[in-house]
Amino acid sequence: MKICVIGAGNGGQALAAFLALRGHDVALYNRSEWRIAPIIKTRKIKVEGEINATAQISFATTDIAEAMKDRELIMVVLPANAHREIATKMAPHLKDGQVVVLNPGRTAGALEFYNVLKELNVKKDITIAEAQTFIFASRMSNPGVVRIFRIKNAVPVAALPSTKNPQLERTLIKVMPEFEIVESTLYTSFNNIGAVFHPATIILNAGWVETTFGKFEFYFEGISKSVAKVLEAIDFERCEIARKFGIEPMTAVQWLAYAYDVRGSDLYEAIHKNEGYRGIQAPTSLDNRYITEDVPTSLVPLSAFGKLVNVPTPTIDSIIQIASVIMGVDYFKEGRNFERLHLEGKTVEQVKRIMERGEE
Amino acid sequence: MKICVIGAGNGGQALAAFLALRGHDVALYNRSEWRIAPIIKTRKIKVEGEINATAQISFATTDIAEAMKDRELIMVVLPANAHREIATKMAPHLKDGQVVVLNPGRTAGALEFYNVLKELNVKKDITIAEAQTFIFASRMSNPGVVRIFRIKNAVPVAALPSTKNPQLERTLIKVMPEFEIVESTLYTSFNNIGAVFHPATIILNAGWVETTFGKFEFYFEGISKSVAKVLEAIDFERCEIARKFGIEPMTAVQWLAYAYDVRGSDLYEAIHKNEGYRGIQAPTSLDNRYITEDVPTSLVPLSAFGKLVNVPTPTIDSIIQIASVIMGVDYFKEGRNFERLHLEGKTVEQVKRIMERGEE
Repeated sequence: MKICVIGAGNGGQALAAFLALRGHDVALYNRSEWRIAPIIKTRKIKVEGEINATAQISFATTDIAEAMKDRELIMVVLPANAHREIATKMAPHLKDGQVVVLNPGRTAGALEFYNVLKELNVKKDITIAEAQTFIFASRMSNPGVVRIFRIKNAVPVAALPSTKNPQLERTLIKVMPEFEIVESTLYTSFNNIGAVFHPATIILNAGWVETTFGKFEFYFEGISKSVAKVLEAIDFERCEIARKFGIEPMTAVQWLAYAYDVRGSDLYEAIHKNEGYRGIQAPTSLDNRYITEDVPTSLVPLSAFGKLVNVPTPTIDSIIQIASVIMGVDYFKEGRNFERLHLEGKTVEQVKRIMERGEE
Repeated sequence: MKICVIGAGNGGQALAAFLALRGHDVALYNRSEWRIAPIIKTRKIKVEGEINATAQISFATTDIAEAMKDRELIMVVLPANAHREIATKMAPHLKDGQVVVLNPGRTAGALEFYNVLKELNVKKDITIAEAQTFIFASRMSNPGVVRIFRIKNAVPVAALPSTKNPQLERTLIKVMPEFEIVESTLYTSFNNIGAVFHPATIILNAGWVETTFGKFEFYFEGISKSVAKVLEAIDFERCEIARKFGIEPMTAVQWLAYAYDVRGSDLYEAIHKNEGYRGIQAPTSLDNRYITEDVPTSLVPLSAFGKLVNVPTPTIDSIIQIASVIMGVDYFKEGRNFERLHLEGKTVEQVKRIMERGEE
């Protein structure tokens, strides 16, 4: 299949290589050239870790039109806070029948993308979908060399509106059966697991991250028993919101079993049994996606959805507040709040209809 | 002067020794015997650090009646969350003319003590006072051996009601001119500096504390630039509350200059210039006074006072929430809230009158 991967960070390079190794024709796009300069030349990406091979992609480019041309499947592998910008950039080049998958969408990524196309009056027959999390735990060592620590067993994915799930089946699942189609983006959005793991862990280790430039293992050392309790509190709030929308949530503990085959009596134990997390170092600074991406696109929309269904989110809100102070950004205002998602004043039933059928 | 020191922790032993070295007759009380067993025998406390000497106290005891008998000045050196209990225990043994100083009161410690005596219908003429912070930075190495890292230049203190400030002048200031009498406990309560430094610092280093058992310098390494930003946000909320009560607050930066003679353009810089903090290790666990004392007796009352004067306290509330999750205690309910302080339904003017004149 002709596939385009948008974004050549840790994830994008790993995914481009993975798909090329499966025999697909892969175009890799990145906004800035430095990251893909070696790949533009050699068209090669070396993969280490769970897979050891060198993949040959078709081409790498900084030209979005060239990257998207004739591609059936477009895999967006960008921080979710870039979804609005990339949607705007992609809009003029979209063609009927194309499938765009946000890897991952965080919470309501597909809805944000959908809204941008609507605002720009794009009338093409596009399928927009969001994955619940990213398929790999991966880190780039150098441009053109990427380490895949672990391929998750399964990742839920859904189209918005869900009526487009069949198109997803025919494209995404055909090339990557690791994905599992679920009822709607209500499921992927409320089962956003990054919301649970990322922001609170980095914030509850803020001094450690900054003073040592992240010289500790993020999951194994950063998630001590008390940190795990805070993650569980966030997870509880998230699951309560999901239930109020009629979605059966996967708790963080259940998700670790689903995605990594690890089991524990509580979140602390399950995390510390997950060999997939071994070797993943903490970020070197707080100006990091665990805050700059996950707070505005995960915690902020969860807090907004919580308000709509009267689920209190004191722990989620506390992490948003502290992140806002640290970064000097009012994430409640700047993040995916209901104003930005065009959901202000909507009822629960209206929100469900929008996410499921793309209409009110 | 005949002085009683209640509590033989880091602070109580240091203060007892300090006062004995100034030639006073000091009785030292502690609830449990193990801490004072060596002192009961030898009546000696060795002081290291800023002072190097061995002090001779009159006696150490676990009998509160014996400890308080004939003492003019009673220095309570306990975590503020023990004020209610110690007030109840001291009540039957209080005599006319005694001066009780809470070292420190945290926020509204004197008011809590005062309320207990009122509830127990104690009619004695007692002066209750609270210090704004503890006079030393000190740590006990062994029972009977204590290190004073730094003696603060000055510590504000006030009686509740403030009309009793003259009694404080005649007793406390006579023996410790390092204290400075201020207008009222509104000042000491709203200038509670522990509220700013302690809970957020430990919480934003939760993983580091637990994973390494506190193997880092609490102030120098724990307070990174982002952690300092959160402390500044808490400080800002605290100062806004003080201003609404007509109290000119001392910002944390101003306080570091006042108490330690260190100056900095921001809180990060000032803290990192303070040699008085050098060598102070982080606590070995989160079950520590920086949370268990400071959250219920500093942040919770500040949040409550903030509500009364319409000052939003989102950062203070976030730290209270996360501390509650970590410790499994609802500090908003269990701490010094307005119900516990008997201030529910009171106006700002009534609260001021209670703190200043002991009446509504």
